[in-house]
Amino acid sequence: MNSIEKLTRIFSEFPGIGPRQARRFVYFLLTRQNGALEDLSKNILDLKKQVAVCDDCMRFYEKKHDKSKLCSICSDHTRDQNILMIVQRDVDLTSVEKNGNFNGIYFVLGGSVPILEKEPEKKIRLSEFKNFILKKNNEGLKEVILGMNWNPEGENTAQFIENFLNKTLEKEVTSNKVKISHLGKGLSMGTELEYIDPDTLRNALRNRN
Amino acid sequence: MNSIEKLTRIFSEFPGIGPRQARRFVYFLLTRQNGALEDLSKNILDLKKQVAVCDDCMRFYEKKHDKSKLCSICSDHTRDQNILMIVQRDVDLTSVEKNGNFNGIYFVLGGSVPILEKEPEKKIRLSEFKNFILKKNNEGLKEVILGMNWNPEGENTAQFIENFLNKTLEKEVTSNKVKISHLGKGLSMGTELEYIDPDTLRNALRNRN
Amino acid sequence: MNSIEKLTRIFSEFPGIGPRQARRFVYFLLTRQNGALEDLSKNILDLKKQVAVCDDCMRFYEKKHDKSKLCSICSDHTRDQNILMIVQRDVDLTSVEKNGNFNGIYFVLGGSVPILEKEPEKKIRLSEFKNFILKKNNEGLKEVILGMNWNPEGENTAQFIENFLNKTLEKEVTSNKVKISHLGKGLSMGTELEYIDPDTLRNALRNRN
Amino acid sequence: MNSIEKLTRIFSEFPGIGPRQARRFVYFLLTRQNGALEDLSKNILDLKKQVAVCDDCMRFYEKKHDKSKLCSICSDHTRDQNILMIVQRDVDLTSVEKNGNFNGIYFVLGGSVPILEKEPEKKIRLSEFKNFILKKNNEGLKEVILGMNWNPEGENTAQFIENFLNKTLEKEVTSNKVKISHLGKGLSMGTELEYIDPDTLRNALRNRN
Repeated sequence: MNSIEKLTRIFSEFPGIGPRQARRFVYFLLTRQNGALEDLSKNILDLKKQVAVCDDCMRFYEKKHDKSKLCSICSDHTRDQNILMIVQRDVDLTSVEKNGNFNGIYFVLGGSVPILEKEPEKKIRLSEFKNFILKKNNEGLKEVILGMNWNPEGENTAQFIENFLNKTLEKEVTSNKVKISHLGKGLSMGTELEYIDPDTLRNALRNRN
Repeated sequence: MNSIEKLTRIFSEFPGIGPRQARRFVYFLLTRQNGALEDLSKNILDLKKQVAVCDDCMRFYEKKHDKSKLCSICSDHTRDQNILMIVQRDVDLTSVEKNGNFNGIYFVLGGSVPILEKEPEKKIRLSEFKNFILKKNNEGLKEVILGMNWNPEGENTAQFIENFLNKTLEKEVTSNKVKISHLGKGLSMGTELEYIDPDTLRNALRNRN
Repeated sequence: MNSIEKLTRIFSEFPGIGPRQARRFVYFLLTRQNGALEDLSKNILDLKKQVAVCDDCMRFYEKKHDKSKLCSICSDHTRDQNILMIVQRDVDLTSVEKNGNFNGIYFVLGGSVPILEKEPEKKIRLSEFKNFILKKNNEGLKEVILGMNWNPEGENTAQFIENFLNKTLEKEVTSNKVKISHLGKGLSMGTELEYIDPDTLRNALRNRN
Repeated sequence: MNSIEKLTRIFSEFPGIGPRQARRFVYFLLTRQNGALEDLSKNILDLKKQVAVCDDCMRFYEKKHDKSKLCSICSDHTRDQNILMIVQRDVDLTSVEKNGNFNGIYFVLGGSVPILEKEPEKKIRLSEFKNFILKKNNEGLKEVILGMNWNPEGENTAQFIENFLNKTLEKEVTSNKVKISHLGKGLSMGTELEYIDPDTLRNALRNRN
């Protein structure tokens, strides 16, 4: 396979990119000035050198000069380290950080649990989650927020995590020392009653305030 | 103007219909079998004869043989007549009835209050609403749910109605005898955290449960 | 069924209209001022009284006071009555009249011939077409333009009509006295080479000029 | 700026990619197995080493071991080297090669001429085109096909190139030794008469056959 085809094939695997747009990327690169390709190439190569996975929340973060193995959120003591939001992916964490006025910490599952999945532990970071949750529990964990998407796979993931917490922290959950909570459901910005679906409407009514 | 043009023009005023689709409607009618046009024509003519506006909630309803001036919801004593949801339009009421598992009653404003509107009483049925709310208050009203769309005009309408209630039922609202509530806000069916807007996310966090 | 439901059901049969929009139409009518419904009702009823089907081209047209049974195009002697464009529907004729700078006449098939259709004569006005084409042939017909949509059903219809003409006017077609032509194919306004489909591109190349 | 941000910014410049999708690309890369990033990085770096611009048609092509400076099309003597299609970009050439059954050769302008552009020679490879066209003319050029998109900028580019050819090959064009042609215009695959625009319809009628 020649180099245009080879690169087209690689770009085709990028999320949301088909073969046609992949090819446009290659031609786009071909028209770039000298230096641009070297720059891109180097940045890609450096990515894993400069980015680490946080030992606690498992998100990707930029390494600092110090020897800390924790990201800026997990090592920030002005944040409430006892409120934990569990999200599916790094992009979800980024979105909540940017928009949410949330002052707790996170755990990134790195995926979700499909319905009827036989081996959930292969889809998400389950053993890392267990270690983290036990550690946090020892340090005074108060609340675990299930921050999943509201779609079938997200709901299934939330259900799985909730069951897992009920087992792993049985005493704490039963005694209400650790609270498990779900993101509120109801009208989203832009929702019109005329077009609302039954599940959203029922939640909007139940959660009226 | 000839009759094809005239009918096209009338259909163009239907909600969501442009001149091109209006013209297709006319040609569609021309190809109908005998009787179909007479049937449509008669049904349109009969509409206002058979449909009345409910004296209480102001929604359109099919007249019955009895002399009642109330719709089937307002005259249904198995429903909680002390919980009132205020909606903008009949289609909103229909949607809630169909999907919402709601057992109270309604009031249909017949429109909404645009932002900076000088004469809100011309946009919604304000005097009818006042009469109805005073009557219901005498009969033991417990809760008023503001069932508006979540968009700027819907929010403005909810704000206007809330202010109006605070004045009209000042004593009852202050003493918490009548509660004013809003539909819950948060994740809607299908919402993904990656694409969530800040207002929805903030509400989803605040309303977590 | 009550009158709101009944009218909703009728509007649901209009082209491109689902039950939800049909219901909006009904509520829209309910909010109209007095007189508007009577006006619409009357216009629908009058439609077939004031509109006739042209004896020649079979299109719908507004009847005049005179006794002519031909539409304004078929009776217009400034138009070339020997160039005939065959279209599927009235809306196609309207579109060509509005946009096309075409000075011949038309025949409206009233439909199209689906692929593998066993009884094409039930889908289009075949006997009327035969009569018309024989009459026109006697009057000096020079060209028949197949003005079908470019999609599988349109192509099948064009093929069917072409075969039919080859049989019905065999001598005239063979001797080139009557020419059968197709609308030109190639780039449409807005076509970009990057996204062009193979059939369009082949035609654009073959028909280059 | 950290390395995630830096790479996000670079991907944001890719055609059709916004900052959000660019960020997803970066996270996607972070989850790739070892070796994948090295592979991508190397392929990008190698791109310009292995790809050259054809001395004749100016398209990008994979270098061969021989010393030829011509691409596989320009050096293919089974193709008609006297029929030249001028296209705006490499992707257009790829599309025609894949779909078009075209057996001539190409010239890639590398861009287009915006309407009212003061310095067209900065937008397209005009001097290279002049050299190529003069060389081809000496070798027996018969036809130049203007293979531009049908939109305002494409039409303006075609007009500009046609004027340029009329000047540069004045004698040959006037004597019809070199023919200038445009891709055929008319119905594209999928066009329906009801929705056709006036320009397409006029061309479809004029080019009927």
